[in-house]
Formats: sequence, C-alpha cells, structure tokens
Amino acid sequence: MLKIGICGLGNIGGEVFRLLTNKNFLKELPSSIKIIKVCDINKTIKKRLKIPNEIFTTDFRELILSKETDVIVELIGGKDTAFKLIKGAIKNKKHVVTANKFLLAFKGEELFKQASKNKVNIGFEASVCGGVPVIKILKSSLNSDEIQELKGIINGTTNFILSMMESESVEFEDALKIAQKKGIAEKDPSLDITGKDSLHKLCILNFLCFGIWIHPKDIYCEGIQKISLLDIMYAKELGYSIKLLAISRIKKGNLFTYVAPSLIPLDHPLAKVSQDFNALFFKTKLRGDLLFYGKGAGPLPTAGSVISDILEIKDSENIFLRKKQNKKIKLGDVDSLQTRFYIRFIAEDIPGVLAKISSILAKYKISIASVTQKERNPTKYVPIIMLTHYATPKAVFKALKEIDKLKVIKPSSVCIRIED
Amino acid sequence: MLKIGICGLGNIGGEVFRLLTNKNFLKELPSSIKIIKVCDINKTIKKRLKIPNEIFTTDFRELILSKETDVIVELIGGKDTAFKLIKGAIKNKKHVVTANKFLLAFKGEELFKQASKNKVNIGFEASVCGGVPVIKILKSSLNSDEIQELKGIINGTTNFILSMMESESVEFEDALKIAQKKGIAEKDPSLDITGKDSLHKLCILNFLCFGIWIHPKDIYCEGIQKISLLDIMYAKELGYSIKLLAISRIKKGNLFTYVAPSLIPLDHPLAKVSQDFNALFFKTKLRGDLLFYGKGAGPLPTAGSVISDILEIKDSENIFLRKKQNKKIKLGDVDSLQTRFYIRFIAEDIPGVLAKISSILAKYKISIASVTQKERNPTKYVPIIMLTHYATPKAVFKALKEIDKLKVIKPSSVCIRIED
Repeated sequence: MLKIGICGLGNIGGEVFRLLTNKNFLKELPSSIKIIKVCDINKTIKKRLKIPNEIFTTDFRELILSKETDVIVELIGGKDTAFKLIKGAIKNKKHVVTANKFLLAFKGEELFKQASKNKVNIGFEASVCGGVPVIKILKSSLNSDEIQELKGIINGTTNFILSMMESESVEFEDALKIAQKKGIAEKDPSLDITGKDSLHKLCILNFLCFGIWIHPKDIYCEGIQKISLLDIMYAKELGYSIKLLAISRIKKGNLFTYVAPSLIPLDHPLAKVSQDFNALFFKTKLRGDLLFYGKGAGPLPTAGSVISDILEIKDSENIFLRKKQNKKIKLGDVDSLQTRFYIRFIAEDIPGVLAKISSILAKYKISIASVTQKERNPTKYVPIIMLTHYATPKAVFKALKEIDKLKVIKPSSVCIRIED
Repeated sequence: MLKIGICGLGNIGGEVFRLLTNKNFLKELPSSIKIIKVCDINKTIKKRLKIPNEIFTTDFRELILSKETDVIVELIGGKDTAFKLIKGAIKNKKHVVTANKFLLAFKGEELFKQASKNKVNIGFEASVCGGVPVIKILKSSLNSDEIQELKGIINGTTNFILSMMESESVEFEDALKIAQKKGIAEKDPSLDITGKDSLHKLCILNFLCFGIWIHPKDIYCEGIQKISLLDIMYAKELGYSIKLLAISRIKKGNLFTYVAPSLIPLDHPLAKVSQDFNALFFKTKLRGDLLFYGKGAGPLPTAGSVISDILEIKDSENIFLRKKQNKKIKLGDVDSLQTRFYIRFIAEDIPGVLAKISSILAKYKISIASVTQKERNPTKYVPIIMLTHYATPKAVFKALKEIDKLKVIKPSSVCIRIED
C-alpha cells in the first residue's frame, strides 16, 4: 500500500487525482495506492474534483508533516513553493514524485543529494517527454551501455509550430496562434519558443546520460522565433526538415551540449516526428541507434508517468548509468564545435552581391557547399540560400554580423545548424 | 556481486563473454559481475575466446549444479537443450537470463510459472527487439497503463529485405541474397521470411501486454515470400510502404493477434523504419501513441540487453501489467476481422476482364475503393491493382481463389492487408 499526498491539482494533478479515485482503474494496478491528502491553493478545485473535506488542504506543510504519507507528488510547478515542498518532504523521509523540469534543472543536484542522504527516492519520469518512459530507460535498461550522443525533440509546442509551418505553409506567428487556440501553446509562450523548456529537460538528460549537472545558464540555447516559412520551404527543397533539437554529444572526452533549431535530413527518424509529439534519439556504444517516441505532454500521458513513478518509487534507486563517467567528462565549447550551416540572406537583386557575401565568408574561412538564388517575389529583393561546409558557429556568427551591415543586405540574415 | 554461468558462446554469447572479461567495461557497471563457468559443446571456442580451462565445460549440467552461480545465462537457442538448462536452473533456484524467443513462445508459460514457484526471475529483454528495451518498458513503465494495440516490425531480416526491394528496386530473391551476403539473413532463412520469428516474439509480447500465453499454432501467420517488386512499387505510388507487421489489437474485449505483411501509410512512423531496424508501436489508454525503435539483432545490441538483464535480475519481478486483464480477454477470430485490402491481379488485356473480377468480388460483398490498371510490360498481360473497402479476410481469400480459376487471370493473385 502506497500512501500519497498530492500537491497541485491543475491539469496534470487533477488527472492523477481523477485516476487514483477511479475504482476500475485502481483495481487493476499492481499495487494499491491510497490518497491521504491533497493540497491546492485554489479552493474552488475541491468542488470541481469532488474532493472530500477531510483530505483537502491549502497548506502544503500539512502533506509533509503528515505521519501517514510516504510519497509526496509535487505537481505545482515553478521554483519556489515546489522547492520548499520537495525539500521538506525529503527531510521528513518521504519519497517524492515530480514532473517539474524547471526546478530539477536548477536544483536537481541539491535535491538528489539530499534524497540520497535521507534514503528516499525522487521519481521524475514525467519531467522529460511526458508519457514516454525515457527516464526509466536511461536509469535501468541502458545501465550496461554508454551513451555517445543524444538528439531530441523534447518540446511539443515548438514541434507543433514547426510542423504546422511545414504542412500548412503558414508563418511562425500564425502557427503559434493555432497552437494557442488548440491549447498546445500557452498565452505567454516564451518558455517554449525560446528553447528554455527544452534546455531544462536537457539538463536532466545530461545528468542521466553523463552523470553531470550543468547549470542551464552554461548551455547554449537558441529558440525558433527567427525561423520563417521561407526557411522551412527551402530546407524541404534541399531535403531537410527544421526541428528544435536538444543535443548532447561526446567528442574526444568533451561533452558538447546545446539547444538549437536544426536542419535534419528527411530520412532521419526525427524528421518524421510531427505535431506535438516528442522523440529522443540516442547513439550508444553497444546498442547503436535507439529512438523513443510519444506524447511529450498532456494530462493523461503525463499522469500515466506520474502514477508509474508512484508504483515503483520504493524500488527505484538513485544509482545511474556508468558510474564513473562523470569524472572524465569535460564541458566542450559549443561555439567552436564545427558543423555545417544553412544560411539565408535577403539581398538586393543587383550584380556583385554574391561576390560581396562570398568574400566576407572567405575572410572567416567559411567554405560554401551550395548556393541557391531564386526570384520568389516581384520585388527588388531576393533570397539567397547557402549551405556551408564544416565551420565553427563563432566564425559564422561573426561573418553574418559583418554581412548584415552591407547596404545590399536586408538584416537579419538567418543561419541554422545542419545535423547530418 | 552477481555470479553467473554462461551457456552457449556463439555470436551473442561470445560477445557477452568478451564484454564481461573486459576490465574497462566491468569497472563502469553499477554492480560487479563475475563469470563462474562457461559452457559450449564446441571446444575450439575455448581457444578462440581465450577461456581459462578451469571455467570451461562442455556439460551444461555443471552450470546448474554449481553452488557458486546464482544467474544462468542461456544463449544456446533452440528448444531442447535450452529447455533442460533453464528448467534445471530454475529447479536449483538460480535466476535465468535468456534471448531465446523460440523457446519462450512455446514453453514460456510453464517456465514462468516454475520460476515464480521457485522465487527466481527470468530476464528476457534480448528475446524481443534485441537492443531495444521494450520488455523493460512493458514490465515497468507501462504498469499503470492499458495497451489497446501493438503493431511491430520485430524481425530485422524481413525488414531489410523489404527495404532493399523498395530502395534498390530488386526482386525478393535478389534482396534475400544481399541480406545473406551481409549476414543479415541466415543460409536457411525460412524462420524469418515465413514470419515465424515474428510470431514467436509476438507470443512473448502478448503475454506482457495482455497477460495471456497464446500458442504459436493458434496465431495466424503469413510471411513475405509472395511480395513482389511490383507490389512494393504500386504500394508506394498509392502512398504506402509494405512491412511485415506483428499485430495485436483489443476490440470489444477480444484480442485479435496475427503476423502479416501489410501496407502502412508513408506518414506512419513505422513506414520509415528501414534496413534491419526494429520498431514497436503501441496505442495505450493513458499515454496514447508510443514508438520504440532500434537494432533488433546483432551481437553488441543483444549483448547489451543480456547484460542489462543480468544487472537487474535480482530486483526484477514476475509481476506484469494490469493484473486482471488476462481474465477478461478472449481470442478473436482474425479471419473475420474486417480490414481494407490491396489486391493485385495479373490479367489478360482483353475487354470484360474487369467485369468478371468485379462480379466475383461483389458476390462476396467486397466493395472496391479504387482500381488502377497500367500497361507495364509489352505483353498481353497487365497488372490490375485494387484497394477494397473494409472486408473480412475470409471473404477476400474465397473470392481470390475463385478469381484465380478464371482463364484470363494468371494465378496466384496477391492480397495484402492495409493498416490505416
């Protein structure tokens, strides 16, 4: 019998409560779960979810001080109260289940250390890729393996926006509006579209895959706000799809980790991940390529992961993969990591423009693999698309800054990494 | 410390031995593993793998009688000796790790019951989808969920053959030869190409997903031998890819389970699974669509799963999903399960042929969704491609038998299920 307290009864918490009070659902679970206490600051929720008076509270301290609960489920989100709640729960020797990627990215190291000291576990399956059990896979199935690379579409909102742009030929702003209408993007979508949400999840994945906590501020992060329909269309013509990727890659003992929109070949399994689906792609030493795909958000899939965590919390361990790997790995400089680039300029359609651009690129030792120039609009400006050979982001950013100052160029030019 | 005995040192067993005697590999594992004894009937292997005399034997009984071993790793394959070995190991209270899908499909029910009685565990991650941890996911992460459908490409050899036919425009026989040259198909490929290997894995998946063991002989199984390049090409033109699928689907409390080549829409995630990759697609009640993709065979990926099983064998349980589901589920009649069909006839190019075919289909109440007739060859025969509306396999098979008897038709006509 697992005796739990749930804190936060929003979309996900409400769904967890609904499932765990449904007799048909409960009777088929491998272990029994009993809700001892639930907490939300919003009292109207009590009526909406038909919560009996005696188990409802607006004070989270009641959950962690209760002698009856042995698992605290934190579904309030954010950094402040959630942190106090989890810290308090651990201090009182209670296991914790959370979906809070934001908090774990910043405070995971501290919380996991304290949990270990207090001999309790933290279940966090729902914090990355919602309903896809990637945390479990990393914690247990890949315990004999070594991860060399991960590449993930781990934010459903941005993937939905990019997919809409591609399939419906709409601009970013319109795709965002559709996403907001469907409830896939929030009113303030900045955490998603700036790549920050992916970044937080990447911090958790780095811990699981490589045994190190890297602070979010130390990881390069680029959002999708600059991507236009034009880029999506050109990328497709060139055989690529544009996806917001979270990437970590071991190269000569260094870990290169970043979030950035990227062109991936249409025949790569990640290119086909559309709508608000998530997918994580791994290259491992023993198992080779692996891909895990599913719903990254939504009350039901996320509640599924939360309940799965509750069921296993007593048996799960804070031991992770390849125990000594963390001592060896150093953080690599992403600005110096060579990659190929897609660059799009909007230039005046007059002779000599290409020569000017090329000479600046040459100055920074960026060599061009292909150029496409098409007259799309009946204006005097035309898009010029270039694919480069391997170059460092540092050089490309500098060159672009200089090119954008040319009179014949309409700033800002766009450059996007190519993931081959 | 896990003390193991390994039986069978072929491709996979040899790789497991090699890894577990590599100091650099061992020191990064979360628990220590010690090889107590290894067994193979082929003595020359001792020299090739540099196995010390004192741990080598040709008699498997030494492994199960040894007081030192607590885990027996069975990698000999086949039904006879492997069965004796596993039964003996369980009787002697030893945990078992196996990759033997063939044995488990036929004897799994008996072996799991005995293991449960003797309070030991059977690890079998490597028996389905090689390096992809689907067993783990089904056993633990989906413990709160309910699986409504599974659809899998779970045989790498046939997927490689079909992929080659599609990408290189070669006929079945030539694709098979390429697969044999690359070591992806065996000299006698019958277990793979008849669908039997997929069938064995499907039996294991049915146990995990629905809690019931169905004997392989009670499951409809169709191979890929009849698929021609013509069908692959026409399917592609119509927006489909042909894959050998293992399918289980719950419909009104009945389980419909079978193995058959199927047309799947090009935008379905399974359509992009090429070469010798495996993938399993699930529809679940809480998490919605899930897909797991990776290498389904090969010494390294499979050894990865075997070692992961060894590391977790003491903690793993014989409890599975949704404990009571098995009592409710009945086996449905696949012959009566309505589906859409792709049918290809080779017919004489004379007036009235289509009328003859259509009238027989109408007799069996099979309604036609689309017809394509193209002159491909400068002969008097032309292929006719039909897509049907929903119809039962029973009706389609009967109609085809009758149509094949027509003088104007070159038997045998081909019909392939469409998975929408």
